[in-house]
Amino acid sequence: MEISALLTSAGINISICIVLLSLYSILRKQPANYCVYFGRRLVCGGARRYDPFWYERFVPSPSWLVKAWETSEDEFLAAAGLDAVVFLRMVIFSIRIFFITAVVCIAFVLPVNYYGQPKVHKEIHLESSEVFTIENLKEGSKWLWVHCLALYIITSAACLLLYFEYRTIAKMRLGHITGSASKPSQFTVLIRAIPWSPDQSYSDTLSKYFTNYYSSSYMSHQMVYHNGIIQRLLLDAERMCQSLKHVAPEINCRPSLTPCTFCGGLTATNSFHILSNEGDSVKGMELGELTMTTPEQERPAAFVFFKTRYDALVVSEVLQSSNPMLWVTDLAPEPHDVYWRNLNIPYRQLWIRRIATLVGAVAFMFVFLIPVTFIQGLTQLQQLSHAFPFLRGILKEKFINQVITGYLPSVILILFFYAVPPLMMQLNVFSSVRDIPAQLARAVPTQAGFFTTYCFTSGWASLACEIMQPMALIWNLVAKAVSKNKDDSYETLRFPYHTEIPRLLLFGLLGFTNSVIAPLILPFLLIYFFLAYLIYKNQILNVYITKYESGGQYWPIFHNTTIFSLLLTQIIALGFFGLKLSTVASGFTIPLILLTLLFSEYCRHRFAPIFHKHPAQVLIDMDRADEMAGKMEELHKKLHSVYSQIPLHSQKSSSKGECSTPFANQELPDPEKLKPEEGDAIAKELWGYQGNESGQEHEDKSCPSASSPENRTPTMIELHKRS
Amino acid sequence: MEISALLTSAGINISICIVLLSLYSILRKQPANYCVYFGRRLVCGGARRYDPFWYERFVPSPSWLVKAWETSEDEFLAAAGLDAVVFLRMVIFSIRIFFITAVVCIAFVLPVNYYGQPKVHKEIHLESSEVFTIENLKEGSKWLWVHCLALYIITSAACLLLYFEYRTIAKMRLGHITGSASKPSQFTVLIRAIPWSPDQSYSDTLSKYFTNYYSSSYMSHQMVYHNGIIQRLLLDAERMCQSLKHVAPEINCRPSLTPCTFCGGLTATNSFHILSNEGDSVKGMELGELTMTTPEQERPAAFVFFKTRYDALVVSEVLQSSNPMLWVTDLAPEPHDVYWRNLNIPYRQLWIRRIATLVGAVAFMFVFLIPVTFIQGLTQLQQLSHAFPFLRGILKEKFINQVITGYLPSVILILFFYAVPPLMMQLNVFSSVRDIPAQLARAVPTQAGFFTTYCFTSGWASLACEIMQPMALIWNLVAKAVSKNKDDSYETLRFPYHTEIPRLLLFGLLGFTNSVIAPLILPFLLIYFFLAYLIYKNQILNVYITKYESGGQYWPIFHNTTIFSLLLTQIIALGFFGLKLSTVASGFTIPLILLTLLFSEYCRHRFAPIFHKHPAQVLIDMDRADEMAGKMEELHKKLHSVYSQIPLHSQKSSSKGECSTPFANQELPDPEKLKPEEGDAIAKELWGYQGNESGQEHEDKSCPSASSPENRTPTMIELHKRS
Repeated sequence: MEISALLTSAGINISICIVLLSLYSILRKQPANYCVYFGRRLVCGGARRYDPFWYERFVPSPSWLVKAWETSEDEFLAAAGLDAVVFLRMVIFSIRIFFITAVVCIAFVLPVNYYGQPKVHKEIHLESSEVFTIENLKEGSKWLWVHCLALYIITSAACLLLYFEYRTIAKMRLGHITGSASKPSQFTVLIRAIPWSPDQSYSDTLSKYFTNYYSSSYMSHQMVYHNGIIQRLLLDAERMCQSLKHVAPEINCRPSLTPCTFCGGLTATNSFHILSNEGDSVKGMELGELTMTTPEQERPAAFVFFKTRYDALVVSEVLQSSNPMLWVTDLAPEPHDVYWRNLNIPYRQLWIRRIATLVGAVAFMFVFLIPVTFIQGLTQLQQLSHAFPFLRGILKEKFINQVITGYLPSVILILFFYAVPPLMMQLNVFSSVRDIPAQLARAVPTQAGFFTTYCFTSGWASLACEIMQPMALIWNLVAKAVSKNKDDSYETLRFPYHTEIPRLLLFGLLGFTNSVIAPLILPFLLIYFFLAYLIYKNQILNVYITKYESGGQYWPIFHNTTIFSLLLTQIIALGFFGLKLSTVASGFTIPLILLTLLFSEYCRHRFAPIFHKHPAQVLIDMDRADEMAGKMEELHKKLHSVYSQIPLHSQKSSSKGECSTPFANQELPDPEKLKPEEGDAIAKELWGYQGNESGQEHEDKSCPSASSPENRTPTMIELHKRS
Repeated sequence: MEISALLTSAGINISICIVLLSLYSILRKQPANYCVYFGRRLVCGGARRYDPFWYERFVPSPSWLVKAWETSEDEFLAAAGLDAVVFLRMVIFSIRIFFITAVVCIAFVLPVNYYGQPKVHKEIHLESSEVFTIENLKEGSKWLWVHCLALYIITSAACLLLYFEYRTIAKMRLGHITGSASKPSQFTVLIRAIPWSPDQSYSDTLSKYFTNYYSSSYMSHQMVYHNGIIQRLLLDAERMCQSLKHVAPEINCRPSLTPCTFCGGLTATNSFHILSNEGDSVKGMELGELTMTTPEQERPAAFVFFKTRYDALVVSEVLQSSNPMLWVTDLAPEPHDVYWRNLNIPYRQLWIRRIATLVGAVAFMFVFLIPVTFIQGLTQLQQLSHAFPFLRGILKEKFINQVITGYLPSVILILFFYAVPPLMMQLNVFSSVRDIPAQLARAVPTQAGFFTTYCFTSGWASLACEIMQPMALIWNLVAKAVSKNKDDSYETLRFPYHTEIPRLLLFGLLGFTNSVIAPLILPFLLIYFFLAYLIYKNQILNVYITKYESGGQYWPIFHNTTIFSLLLTQIIALGFFGLKLSTVASGFTIPLILLTLLFSEYCRHRFAPIFHKHPAQVLIDMDRADEMAGKMEELHKKLHSVYSQIPLHSQKSSSKGECSTPFANQELPDPEKLKPEEGDAIAKELWGYQGNESGQEHEDKSCPSASSPENRTPTMIELHKRS
């Protein structure tokens, strides 16, 4: 690919980005789009009121960029939680390391590559981009030590930065644990596979076991019930509500928090509000009755509550029974993270389901090898005209030629595999174990041009897409136009960590592997990361709400994958030094690989355990502080009610709390959990696979929501009261 | 290789075995060799007295075989401990599964292979052994379903047997835990990396920490001291003893338990005996003084004692501090398993040492590829005469030809790599990832003849060698002849699990991989396993003593490796079905691989945790039983003294106990641990690497021992008393 083709592609993408960002800065000021671009602010009550006759709103402005830039980390932590901060730190780490990498590689490696062979150079824009890669060096070149040195500098910088980041984030995580003092999950253990006994119910077996072995610490428990009965109740209630609505239209079936379009504040529907205050005591009784009447509906799973955090920790970590498939213990998830349907699955099935999920994922990746093989060929112009004979005439045109080779292949690729890490595209060229480094070394520079355009199309474009929220925007417009629905209730989105962290990692991988081999990609990557910093910060502050908080558990994934990228870079460079017959450079790379492995092992010992286990010392100190302050009683009291399979009305009351302090929203039951969807078996399995560690769900609902299940709760309470 | 060459080789080996076993049955009856062949019995006092004029002792007899056969598992467990029973069960499992395999493969697979191609067969002894392999089948043969079915039968039988064995051994392990009620290690936690504080000693930091966080369960602790001071004391004492000996010859410097040659009983030297009774109280004081006077010699490691087993378990499993490199806890090893020198190593160095060990082991294996490549060529006669031109004349002789191809290569191989698993010999033929099954399939049958002779030379011969104990025998004779040493004190050996389990696994691997491909090896393997059963049983009962008891932790290793062997077999068969163009057989093999993986995963969930962790329920029950019986006080009292870095005299008293009940010998400090050897860095690292899980040491001392360090203890006590 010629440099001019590359620049054409970059130009197209930069123009698109500028247009989209300008468009965004206008669209966000339109009141009709507030629910698309300020979902979070609307929930939190922080959206400002605009004068409808304020015509500046039709002029693009960079104010949002300034605002995103100026928000400090503390403000960000308070507003969006630890996971968001960790995510932002991933972006900052990428900016830092690729700034260093770009400086080193463009100042030293690029000239060495360019003047690698004694030949007359063309004008710079007519040069092939391969002139800037390590391919251009002649065999046995004495300048390969520059690449080797650059590799050392990059690796050292990356390891140093990773170390300090890991240390800081570990501290933040500990602060998060101690800071979230009122978490009921810390007192609770999820027990699965309670052994069945013909003489007594599961509940009796459980209380007998814990009063026998943990009499000093056991408080009480909450059984999990067969989903059928809960769902039947909910459906009945729903149906009754629907029929009652026709009779008495003043009973609103969707009485959720209704935002006032212009003031941005929240006004609760009256019926909802009044009932909420009266319903509490009634509910408690009804739950009790239900518990009494359905012992045969019990499942062999329960939440067990303990007197102190330390007691719960101990029970969750110790192997309970001599049969490891019985009395399986885990620290409980937060009440609003519980997916009750999953607790119905017998523990004996879980491991099979996990394996099935894994097999499915692997099969899915291999299916994607077919389009990838095809696409990879397109970057070579000859192959392209061979594949599409009708294009031959057009391809002779210079500009179109540039567009097609610089832009088309990665666009097609995006269409095929938006979600699968394109690392797999390297897999089908492997045929020899011993030659992997050399094969990788051959593959990477020829694909450097492709990766650069991939950075434009997948990186920059996805960021522009992210900030525009086109799906939500269109859905919002269509819904408003078609249904004339004035009641614009909405559902806020959660940040899609599960797609954005892999994307960040993928670009990190591309950056590292190309760094000393084809450094031309680095400036474009830096632009991507810089843009990502501003856009993600803006989006997290304005659009997304925090519902699930892992407490920084994404960082070890990022850390390990970055180490993997570094190692892969070193192995590829090793292959290259081998191909170029430089034994000195090869010799110096091997210790670097070993040192990187040692660093990784050190971090695994020093920091990783904090992300898997809670330190006893910290929990004991928290317990003592609470006991001194006399808060224990209060904490114990609410444990039973928050882990309730039937959504209690009182759990709604704090839904506003999640905006300011994302850790305090434990009373909010996740509406997603109550939805009787039958087709979400995959999500269910994924949840089971991820366990409590890094599970998150992707809620992809757009603005004007159709009958939200969240609203069933007050409805049911109403019905209970009336019946 | 021709069948006759194979039979020649087998004949030679069978003759050698018969001669050696007959020789053994004579040698074992000679009183001079008692200490070689009845080491264990001499220690336990169970050796019978023979009349020196009883001339039957020069006639070979099979009585030892009968005795080994007749010993029941319960007797064996009581005499030799759980590890020995588990080892024997490995042999029994191998006999069972290879009996089934041999029946299936010889009855069905062998005829299919033999008549695989329509050709005129020679006389059976002139046939090449390759006629009996799957190689003989023509491409696209319709009889491959026989192989596929055989594979299913073998896999099912193996999985069933493995499942029942795992269940039985898990039960035995639980019984072992509950049965060994007086183990001090169950109450003790080994703490490493105690943080350093400038204001106070490690001991103070530790007691402050535990009285603060574990006040209800913490009892006391025992610091680890710098080895220098202990060693200096020991050496001084030794030197003083040496000089005193010249002055007062009645003080015997080697007063250990002296066996009476003919009665086999033990008579303790007087000086030893008398002092032992007087020294106790004095010692306790002196240890106390030492502890008081050397706070600056403390190391950041300690044994901490808790009131109950459950408390110790909890502390050992919970992450203590927010810095995972501080307050590192582990369940303590048994007192006699403690390697005090290792506890001096800072915890921060341990992980580096472990990695260095791993790297060393891998490098070591790769070095062995060089002889292996050479040896592998020798099985082909043409290559042999090419390698050794001077042999060309001799090789034309038929018998010598047979001997060389059937016997020589594996003998040379044995000389090169007695210790390295020869699985590596397959490694250098791999060059393609995707073709591994096919390449394996090509490699295995051509090497089948080699593997069969390897079974003779390494398998049968090593068993004969094991029972003869040639090194010990020669050493015994030489020492008696040269030094005229009438005081035949001796050191008993421990069973070398670390070489014998890998050997068993290797032959299992050979058996499985060859089963459907070249079933001719199976009868020879069966003979090996059967012989192994009798010989190992005899040796464990008569020769070896049990010092380290892992509680059956070798079984998961055996289980996992057997599963690996099954999977490798299936993959090789898959490659073969591919080579022979049988899509049906290939198609049916893939689900078998998946099912085997599922079975492995199930066992990993169902049984493996029992071998890594102690179940809380079991420990709590044990604690309660001891409290009810009022034994707790007694147990607590002796905790402090048994974990003492300075060998107390009282610890000697129970050295006889190790014979009958191997679990009760916790008071015996291992003399090996006190030896000031400087060159055992590798052993030290290995110990560190294996941790408490499966570590064992190989003590390879023969009969007439030179100045045993064990004997220093009473000497020192004497000196202490005198000074």
